[in-house]
Amino acid sequence: MKSFQIVGIGNAMVDVLSRAEDAFLTEAGIEKGVMQLIDMERAVDLYGRIGPAKEISGGSAANTIAGIAHLGGRTAYVGKVKDDQLGAIFVHDLRAIGASYETTLAPKVSDAETGRCIVVVTPDGERSMNTYLGWSEHLGPDDIDPDLMADAEWIYLEGYRFDGPASHAAFAKAINASKGAGGRVSVTLSDPFCVERHRDAFRVMIREDVDLLFCNRAELMSMYQTGDFDSALAAAANDVAIVACTDSENGAHILSEGQRWHAPAVPTDIVDATGAGDLFAGAFLWGLAEGRDLETCGRMGCVAASEVISHIGARPEADLKALFKSHGLI
Amino acid sequence: MKSFQIVGIGNAMVDVLSRAEDAFLTEAGIEKGVMQLIDMERAVDLYGRIGPAKEISGGSAANTIAGIAHLGGRTAYVGKVKDDQLGAIFVHDLRAIGASYETTLAPKVSDAETGRCIVVVTPDGERSMNTYLGWSEHLGPDDIDPDLMADAEWIYLEGYRFDGPASHAAFAKAINASKGAGGRVSVTLSDPFCVERHRDAFRVMIREDVDLLFCNRAELMSMYQTGDFDSALAAAANDVAIVACTDSENGAHILSEGQRWHAPAVPTDIVDATGAGDLFAGAFLWGLAEGRDLETCGRMGCVAASEVISHIGARPEADLKALFKSHGLI
Repeated sequence: MKSFQIVGIGNAMVDVLSRAEDAFLTEAGIEKGVMQLIDMERAVDLYGRIGPAKEISGGSAANTIAGIAHLGGRTAYVGKVKDDQLGAIFVHDLRAIGASYETTLAPKVSDAETGRCIVVVTPDGERSMNTYLGWSEHLGPDDIDPDLMADAEWIYLEGYRFDGPASHAAFAKAINASKGAGGRVSVTLSDPFCVERHRDAFRVMIREDVDLLFCNRAELMSMYQTGDFDSALAAAANDVAIVACTDSENGAHILSEGQRWHAPAVPTDIVDATGAGDLFAGAFLWGLAEGRDLETCGRMGCVAASEVISHIGARPEADLKALFKSHGLI
Repeated sequence: MKSFQIVGIGNAMVDVLSRAEDAFLTEAGIEKGVMQLIDMERAVDLYGRIGPAKEISGGSAANTIAGIAHLGGRTAYVGKVKDDQLGAIFVHDLRAIGASYETTLAPKVSDAETGRCIVVVTPDGERSMNTYLGWSEHLGPDDIDPDLMADAEWIYLEGYRFDGPASHAAFAKAINASKGAGGRVSVTLSDPFCVERHRDAFRVMIREDVDLLFCNRAELMSMYQTGDFDSALAAAANDVAIVACTDSENGAHILSEGQRWHAPAVPTDIVDATGAGDLFAGAFLWGLAEGRDLETCGRMGCVAASEVISHIGARPEADLKALFKSHGLI
């Protein structure tokens, strides 16, 4: 048996969450509902303009791995933080939820700080993200331990992590180590703008290496450059063994080997949409690793996504297993 | 007109909030419902044992000042943070809510870090606090700007801030500057153990300098070393012009010039009791500065306390003025 069910690789981030009206987004030049990369100067300026905030560990793949750890899955995370206070917070929160954390901490003398994401939540619960990658940007092949990748049933690659000079080489190393040991590869497209930045690289990777593709409607349509959702789903299903595509209040669509399932969304009051896709992926992967059928995995994903958007922060707070039980999923 | 209605002095803290069962408190040697001072070693050990946490600006007087700023009051805060990431968070959150922040940032080379409070919230919503004072402990007379104190209608002194080598001298300087300019002095007793540590100093200060005393039932009875609540209230009313004593689900008791009022508690589901007393004081002081009668001030305090315990974190999230309006208080 491999030591880990899922090992994730992503941008290690602490979220800086604040609330604002929609007008603030316009004033501050923030694109609603997506992730924008910002530099330190912009991060300082923006931080000076937002209201009081809460600092809560985030990072897309890290949220997914936190969800898997919360469910009792055997899971580890690879990402890069600096040896500073935000780095300590990030590492603590992953380990405290039960995930292994594998990284080389950057020395204190380096310039870049631990990455952070300034998240502005509007009254509709939508989150608009402004990411200073910081030290996270420098994750490269040297940070990838092939033995760890080989010791995981699944690796999970965060699309956002394609930004950065050495990230493609890092992912290639992780994929080779995983495949060489009979592991499987999952990836999330992360964000429609992320897809635009990396469409060609994503396309090659998806066709050649990916067994399970996570995405949402907008990302998928951007990926396959079509205005027709069903065509995009069909194209994806042609490229990978399993497609798990979230569709907001329409739930999620799962496609595999010519079959298609629908998992309904679980209604809730949306307080903060941050982490919905991440927790969908976490619950789905956990279900898969536990041998559940794809439809059940999709339904677990929708339950976990519903929980995480019902409160501030992108990590689970309620007992997800108890929720799965109440929905008859375990 | 003085520039400020209220200037507060206290321990500048970032709260590290996590949840645990009561059994964890016993295992970890945490006294339930009170504040314990801890050193850096214990802080590191305890942080390694708690679950995933959220970082939210706190500090008792800082929460009070944040509440006043949220209400639109003219207010400033004096406390000491280091020039580190937690320090930046603390300063940002006070300024973002509209308070002036006056401090000399500690240089990066100093040993002590920005203070933090590891808050463990149990299922009943009660909070147990473990405070590493850090750089905050070193607040001394040099940090007190007499012009700022003289330019405030009220100064507000946090009882917790009596811990530390130069704190008594700092408070004396603040009181003298305030009184010399016709200002008034309010103080909070903070915590029953804090009262035990500083009873004699508190007693002298209360008799000689304090115009308005904030406390809760346990603190008041410890202060006057009596098991009879009404005797303690009477003794306090004999010492100071105004006593505002909170009493958990029994609301608050206000005494002044031979009169006594009761403000009922505002029922809510207690999610996290952190900040209840702080926000009571903030709303009360704001009402007083706005010329409201003492009973109304007490009722405002109870509404604000009820809001802050309905969510994680010790700073207001809902619109307190709107709540006051819905309760017919403004």
